[in-house]
Amino acid sequence: MSHISLSGIFPPIPTPFNADEEIAFDRLQFNLDRWNQEPLNGYVVGGSNGEFVFLSLDERVEVVRQARRIAPRDRLVIAGSGMESARQTIELTRRMAQTGADVALVVTPNYYKAGMNVAALVHYYRQVADASPLPVMIYSVPGNTGLDMPAQAVIDLARHPNIIGLKDSGGDVTKIGLMAHETRDADFQIVAGSAGFFLGALSVGAVGCVPALGNIAGAKLAELLKAFQHGDVDAARAIQRPLIEANTAVTSRFGVPGLKAAMDMLGYYGGPVRSPLMPLADDERETLRRILIKSGLLS
Amino acid sequence: MSHISLSGIFPPIPTPFNADEEIAFDRLQFNLDRWNQEPLNGYVVGGSNGEFVFLSLDERVEVVRQARRIAPRDRLVIAGSGMESARQTIELTRRMAQTGADVALVVTPNYYKAGMNVAALVHYYRQVADASPLPVMIYSVPGNTGLDMPAQAVIDLARHPNIIGLKDSGGDVTKIGLMAHETRDADFQIVAGSAGFFLGALSVGAVGCVPALGNIAGAKLAELLKAFQHGDVDAARAIQRPLIEANTAVTSRFGVPGLKAAMDMLGYYGGPVRSPLMPLADDERETLRRILIKSGLLS
Amino acid sequence: MSHISLSGIFPPIPTPFNADEEIAFDRLQFNLDRWNQEPLNGYVVGGSNGEFVFLSLDERVEVVRQARRIAPRDRLVIAGSGMESARQTIELTRRMAQTGADVALVVTPNYYKAGMNVAALVHYYRQVADASPLPVMIYSVPGNTGLDMPAQAVIDLARHPNIIGLKDSGGDVTKIGLMAHETRDADFQIVAGSAGFFLGALSVGAVGCVPALGNIAGAKLAELLKAFQHGDVDAARAIQRPLIEANTAVTSRFGVPGLKAAMDMLGYYGGPVRSPLMPLADDERETLRRILIKSGLLS
Amino acid sequence: MSHISLSGIFPPIPTPFNADEEIAFDRLQFNLDRWNQEPLNGYVVGGSNGEFVFLSLDERVEVVRQARRIAPRDRLVIAGSGMESARQTIELTRRMAQTGADVALVVTPNYYKAGMNVAALVHYYRQVADASPLPVMIYSVPGNTGLDMPAQAVIDLARHPNIIGLKDSGGDVTKIGLMAHETRDADFQIVAGSAGFFLGALSVGAVGCVPALGNIAGAKLAELLKAFQHGDVDAARAIQRPLIEANTAVTSRFGVPGLKAAMDMLGYYGGPVRSPLMPLADDERETLRRILIKSGLLS
Repeated sequence: MSHISLSGIFPPIPTPFNADEEIAFDRLQFNLDRWNQEPLNGYVVGGSNGEFVFLSLDERVEVVRQARRIAPRDRLVIAGSGMESARQTIELTRRMAQTGADVALVVTPNYYKAGMNVAALVHYYRQVADASPLPVMIYSVPGNTGLDMPAQAVIDLARHPNIIGLKDSGGDVTKIGLMAHETRDADFQIVAGSAGFFLGALSVGAVGCVPALGNIAGAKLAELLKAFQHGDVDAARAIQRPLIEANTAVTSRFGVPGLKAAMDMLGYYGGPVRSPLMPLADDERETLRRILIKSGLLS
Repeated sequence: MSHISLSGIFPPIPTPFNADEEIAFDRLQFNLDRWNQEPLNGYVVGGSNGEFVFLSLDERVEVVRQARRIAPRDRLVIAGSGMESARQTIELTRRMAQTGADVALVVTPNYYKAGMNVAALVHYYRQVADASPLPVMIYSVPGNTGLDMPAQAVIDLARHPNIIGLKDSGGDVTKIGLMAHETRDADFQIVAGSAGFFLGALSVGAVGCVPALGNIAGAKLAELLKAFQHGDVDAARAIQRPLIEANTAVTSRFGVPGLKAAMDMLGYYGGPVRSPLMPLADDERETLRRILIKSGLLS
Repeated sequence: MSHISLSGIFPPIPTPFNADEEIAFDRLQFNLDRWNQEPLNGYVVGGSNGEFVFLSLDERVEVVRQARRIAPRDRLVIAGSGMESARQTIELTRRMAQTGADVALVVTPNYYKAGMNVAALVHYYRQVADASPLPVMIYSVPGNTGLDMPAQAVIDLARHPNIIGLKDSGGDVTKIGLMAHETRDADFQIVAGSAGFFLGALSVGAVGCVPALGNIAGAKLAELLKAFQHGDVDAARAIQRPLIEANTAVTSRFGVPGLKAAMDMLGYYGGPVRSPLMPLADDERETLRRILIKSGLLS
Repeated sequence: MSHISLSGIFPPIPTPFNADEEIAFDRLQFNLDRWNQEPLNGYVVGGSNGEFVFLSLDERVEVVRQARRIAPRDRLVIAGSGMESARQTIELTRRMAQTGADVALVVTPNYYKAGMNVAALVHYYRQVADASPLPVMIYSVPGNTGLDMPAQAVIDLARHPNIIGLKDSGGDVTKIGLMAHETRDADFQIVAGSAGFFLGALSVGAVGCVPALGNIAGAKLAELLKAFQHGDVDAARAIQRPLIEANTAVTSRFGVPGLKAAMDMLGYYGGPVRSPLMPLADDERETLRRILIKSGLLS
């Protein structure tokens, strides 16, 4: 298997819906056509920002298939294929492989939190990786799952030949630095799961980013990464810091509805979310607009 | 619609699996035949103890269909039909209605925790209840979901004609008492979601219980309820307290693997769990055995 | 040592301050003179509602001395004497003994949370109880300390001859029931640390209450206890439930400022709090007033 | 007032005790004599690692006085002077000023967590800073206090002329980056409160560190800082990463007992902790030793 580089910017793209909450595949094409012009390295499809938990299995597969069709060959399509059980995840990952996706992104199972200790998580990811036709990325997103993938489990799994990396959305750079250090001899890459701590993660060894903000600020984040790779931390910081407030607005503060509203403001197609997510209220939308202006993303 | 009473003991039954993790419908029959002899008032099928998040949609429906077929007509079959989105939940609830299930149990959506405020949750449950052919019970289980259904949302929803109650597995009797008080004029019933706080919940107005422990101690819990209803709190307490440790063992401490192991020890069919849940280790099994003996459930 | 009964209502009295934040001993007398007319069984002095963390050691001792002087001999004065270290707590407890206080209430040390495991807590309370001239009550108040005294530590300590009970402000009746059961043969009593779960705690074996709400609703809570002791749970419930919202208002919602504002509304002396606590804003005061009226405490 | 630079390494020194738990001032001299030879920029005295919550007020003042006497004039002595109330903190800060300390480090009040909103915290720190003869550093240490100083409160306070900075032990670089950005025009400096995320914090704008690990690895951390300041992030990372595990061992994992044990292993005086902290067990000590060896701090 040739090495897959996760160094780069891979926005987790939203799933566009029409007013009736059906998937708007034409709008997916519209957005991707535009993103394809931006200096991005690939796309995460069917991640948290893709409202994957609201999609049927067929929808999850079809969105990945369409994204793979539209994206240039040299851009990775990373397909969210995590379910709660090993057998479901394996089955869905196999279907994802048939779409041409490059990598499977497997979120931590989390419903039975009390049972998800290091042993259970290591066992689970080994089962999945052994059976997966696609290379596997672990996905830890405690803000959604209530479960922070233990560093020890990541370290144990990093040497598995079919596990290539971790998307860490927890943002604890102490933990990221420790994992990067302990897996330094493995073929294993860590990417920041949010743009808010991108530079902090890079500084301790992360190589890329899967930023919600990358859907609307991909060029800036690509520039940040390049500056860092060229050893210019001052330039990277000058890009990083003004983006934090905007990043928070389209992630923890206003969530996917915030991201979609920002996309609408910036000429992408955002559109509605599925219920129980709710569209932004008018005052929230105004707050978001002010933040985007302050951050330099909207004029 | 005639009144459906939730006063009673409704164990959340596990889904039995064979060694290959396929559903063992014959064992479901075996267990239900035995439970049907016990003083229970119905069954929750496809709840957290039923590993519903590990089942395909077809499996979820089929388990309910079989349980409804085997259970006596006068015992309620309460079908877990919650998904993350309103449209998914509505669709699954409609399928559940066709199995003959009596009530739909709808867990709080929780993946987008940050967005699940009172307004979003009230909107969601109204959508579901409006569209559901079955009466709806709200299901709050923060230990699994990381989300505690806000009292205010429950109070707002209690007057909806198609929402008949709440299964509260959080165990906060201050909150249960407040909700019972504020919904006292509504056709709304609260049931304790675990046997550990059953008497405490009854004391402030709960009417029944959906206890994992009811799968192995149904008669005792029925006796507790009867004693309480007869005004004999001392007798109820004498039953309640020795069961707490055993209850914890088959819930938060050892989870579904613990419940299934206890069932095996007591002559029911427990069997394996699906991965990533893991069977009890030998020392855990011994601890569980000692606790069951101490509690008087095993000799 | 004769048995000290903790069965009853023991309000944790606030420390009254003048406008300059100095202790208003005349107002302490004023309040106690009124409380002495109410069916209470004693007072907790220098607890969380007494703003003990804001008092100098001399102030802590003096408030207890004055309360003991004013309270009738047959009412217990329970003195908050907890500090972070064993040596500080022992020293302060000895000073409290000289005031004539009856019992020492010792909050869990909590600054070094990560180190406060069962072994450390058991060791700590044994040191304190061994050295204390006063019988000791353990005080667990996770809302303030961020530390929930483990049930196992309580069970281990219950047999110490100088540890007579636990004030549990966590409100988890599963845990309270377990502790009551496992200490049933010890000379050990559990009291509810808040009125919100008083009946729930009684139902599983608590014997009394240390309710902030007892400062303004002592007679009602005494009536609740009497009804329960007479086996009339329905009557107890009829008192309990309408008080929950008011209880929350003077505890977790508005805190000590809320309690003091309620006391002012009801003819006691509430007065200011010490900074960084802040007095209620006008709209909060109005909300509080409406809640007190709704609960039947204010007309 | 001349500018005080917080750029540098300022270890939070432990308070040495004899076997009887009395302060060992001779050992304080011994340790400081050695630290004075290391490339450090000052000392935090009476912080969390100084077990300040276990010291009497007189002890807190005396330890600072002695440290100030022993430390060279060009090294800052930063005195922990936080208490729970504004009046206590102001009084203790005034006493600290008389010892010759350079800066007052004021931990967030935290006992009444529910009341510690942005308004209350801003009001509190303004009162303290207005009255303090010493420049004030805010100290946020959620692992101990259970309270994470809100970014908005820090931003509001940064322009106060007597508030010079923040020690942030939470380690959230998204938050640190945001605060650094929003206070970029103020005379306000942020220091990392732990060595685990030092480089991550530097990358977004922190200027120094108050590392427990600095008591045993000051030279390495000074080298890390210098490399970063020279724009050599690769060199900084090469120092940072192998220290993370050791840092965790002397902070969140084994706490002050771990730090003191490590000091004993490395030729400083560690000695006993005060109860309820407990000395390391033998197996913990061996684990710690292995970690120190692995990290290159012990051979």
